[in-house]
Amino acid sequence: MPEFLNLLPPAEALQRLLLSLPAASSIPEIVATNYALGRVTAVPVHAPHPLPSFPRSTVDGYAVRAADTYGASESLPGYLLLAGEVSMGTVAKINLAPSHCALIHTGGMLPEGADAVVMVEYTQASRTGEIEILRTVARGENILQVGEDVGMGEEVIPEGTRLRPAEVGGLMALGLTQVVVMQKPRVGIISTGDEIISPEKELQPGQVSDVNTYTLSALVQECGGQPVGYGICPDRVDALESVVAQALAECDTVVITAGSSASTRDLAAQVINSLGQPGVLVHGVNIRPGKPTILAVCDGKAVIGLPGNPVSALVIASLFVVPVVESLLRLHSSARLHQKQLRPSIPARLTVNIPSQAGREDWVPVRLTNTIAGYEAEPVFGKSNLIFTLVRADGLICIPPDVTGLSTGEVVDVNIM
Amino acid sequence: MPEFLNLLPPAEALQRLLLSLPAASSIPEIVATNYALGRVTAVPVHAPHPLPSFPRSTVDGYAVRAADTYGASESLPGYLLLAGEVSMGTVAKINLAPSHCALIHTGGMLPEGADAVVMVEYTQASRTGEIEILRTVARGENILQVGEDVGMGEEVIPEGTRLRPAEVGGLMALGLTQVVVMQKPRVGIISTGDEIISPEKELQPGQVSDVNTYTLSALVQECGGQPVGYGICPDRVDALESVVAQALAECDTVVITAGSSASTRDLAAQVINSLGQPGVLVHGVNIRPGKPTILAVCDGKAVIGLPGNPVSALVIASLFVVPVVESLLRLHSSARLHQKQLRPSIPARLTVNIPSQAGREDWVPVRLTNTIAGYEAEPVFGKSNLIFTLVRADGLICIPPDVTGLSTGEVVDVNIM
Repeated sequence: MPEFLNLLPPAEALQRLLLSLPAASSIPEIVATNYALGRVTAVPVHAPHPLPSFPRSTVDGYAVRAADTYGASESLPGYLLLAGEVSMGTVAKINLAPSHCALIHTGGMLPEGADAVVMVEYTQASRTGEIEILRTVARGENILQVGEDVGMGEEVIPEGTRLRPAEVGGLMALGLTQVVVMQKPRVGIISTGDEIISPEKELQPGQVSDVNTYTLSALVQECGGQPVGYGICPDRVDALESVVAQALAECDTVVITAGSSASTRDLAAQVINSLGQPGVLVHGVNIRPGKPTILAVCDGKAVIGLPGNPVSALVIASLFVVPVVESLLRLHSSARLHQKQLRPSIPARLTVNIPSQAGREDWVPVRLTNTIAGYEAEPVFGKSNLIFTLVRADGLICIPPDVTGLSTGEVVDVNIM
Repeated sequence: MPEFLNLLPPAEALQRLLLSLPAASSIPEIVATNYALGRVTAVPVHAPHPLPSFPRSTVDGYAVRAADTYGASESLPGYLLLAGEVSMGTVAKINLAPSHCALIHTGGMLPEGADAVVMVEYTQASRTGEIEILRTVARGENILQVGEDVGMGEEVIPEGTRLRPAEVGGLMALGLTQVVVMQKPRVGIISTGDEIISPEKELQPGQVSDVNTYTLSALVQECGGQPVGYGICPDRVDALESVVAQALAECDTVVITAGSSASTRDLAAQVINSLGQPGVLVHGVNIRPGKPTILAVCDGKAVIGLPGNPVSALVIASLFVVPVVESLLRLHSSARLHQKQLRPSIPARLTVNIPSQAGREDWVPVRLTNTIAGYEAEPVFGKSNLIFTLVRADGLICIPPDVTGLSTGEVVDVNIM
């Protein structure tokens, strides 16, 4: 197997792929903010007006001139004349003269002349048209100033931000009902193998249902891409060449599950090399599962050949396909945690020893149990052909190449799946 | 403010709400597995056939009777007659006689009579029709047995499982192109306030754009519910009663952002009490932000009154609305981590002291920085009226009521937003 003579470490292999891709060329599109959850901004968002756009009370109480309350206390209250009530949702019609106050509700607009609000708890309505003030307030107290949240023109959401509920709300607060986001990168997905059939069809002896099209589509959806299925391709050069060429023309990146035998993997590499420059960059990665991984670039587009085994395909796709999609979305420029790690790793204690072959990065599925002392991780052993190995697992742990195994009780980082 | 005399701790308040709800009554529906990512199974899934459904080779090599290889080594090879090649995707037509072998590819069906596979690396084709075997194999070596992944009839996915890419693939591997999932719980969302207007409309002085409808809809989507917007309701009993009654009739649970002044909050409680039994269970929770939270049950459906401030509304919704949706989805029966924690907490070191009032649970937005020594968390201070406080944050930390603050350098759990 000549392709495995020079096995790159996974991180180095990914780096080689990403550095060979041109700067993301995805096209921006305008979507309704209401439907933009999870999308990624293509340009920075600036505030068209300040927030709040008018000075607001943060409490229920009386709008006052702060100077009029100086010295007021429970034992020696101040007395202010009631000028009226501020209605919600309209401009405050009162112009507050000295020694006057106005009833105001939380969120109400501060009337002209007022510069503070006394909480209702520290007031008393003694005589009609007069309010007792039982506490001194400072200028600006219990008030939101214009622009206290964001100033006019301020950059409020940078380019390359994945929109969460908070960002959707922030856009709406500014009246921005549309937002410019990156088009979802189109990821062409091709399953290959003479023995693979659609799950819609009745299984005959010797055949297996296509799994990879669906696990990979789901993974691509989760990370913000648009999966485009190209069905199942037989192990023939002409058939594979034709479908990969079509996917390359129609998509931003292409993923091929390249069959599991050495000959079908060579077929995939051969086809990829024939379809664009520079072709295959990495053929074989120092990782288990997933050693026969192919990383390639064809005329500016990433092409990734995954092993046909469903476990290997899904693990390797999360390590190589997801970063390519994130790179197309320009998420990589972001330093913010939540941009990339929708599911961060969590620490857990191993319940058993896990052996590992030195000199190779091992990814082991584990199942988590929540105990009083924190999470415990137990490996889910199973050959990489067995998709239910991953169904039984909550996450994956990485055993680095310079380690020959992990010990019971050791704390590991579990990458939640 | 009489409603705040008896403030419950948040966990106790949630418990009181969940225990007052009837067992989840959501209705199952059948969806295409292809579109089932993120949905929750309503019944357990059993395997209609074993996986693999036939004995398969896990390597490229020669199918043999293991006994025929005993004693074979590089220095003293065994010799077997080549009976032919196993085609991919069809039943193996060869019936392997003693002293014979058959060329087989990874994933190929083991021919009748064979019980092991010798990897091609440990063979040599010396004379036509004859293969040299350079290593002994044991029975079952390099073979996947029928049912090694799952047995026929085995429960492969329990009820109440949120479907990830792995489960989608597992279903397809079994030819299950449809799956019975819980209908998405319908969550009615009502914004109230005379000062609130739709973000579509031009903002006038004194008005603020509706934020809560959109942040809450996004949050509900993320946790597997179906948001149903009922627009903005003015602060009038008749108007609110009519829209809450409609939402209660049409949805599985209702969320009202109850305005921010004390009078509008009382209005919400009054309306909720008039619409079903037992009505308001909790009015006021010992938490900041979000003290004026209302938790209620009207004739078997949860009704949650959130503070009108957008930060409070979103924080409180993640603590109270999300668990109600998960309960309607019957996720609470699951012990699996990934079912509930799409975004688990991660540890980070505080960069500054954070003061906190003892006797109250505080939730503080923080921003994370990735350093060589791990994550650092810096609080994002801002009044709870300021939605961009949350836009600037990566997560929330919880300061328990028995603590008067956290110190620089302390390691805290950050709940990723």
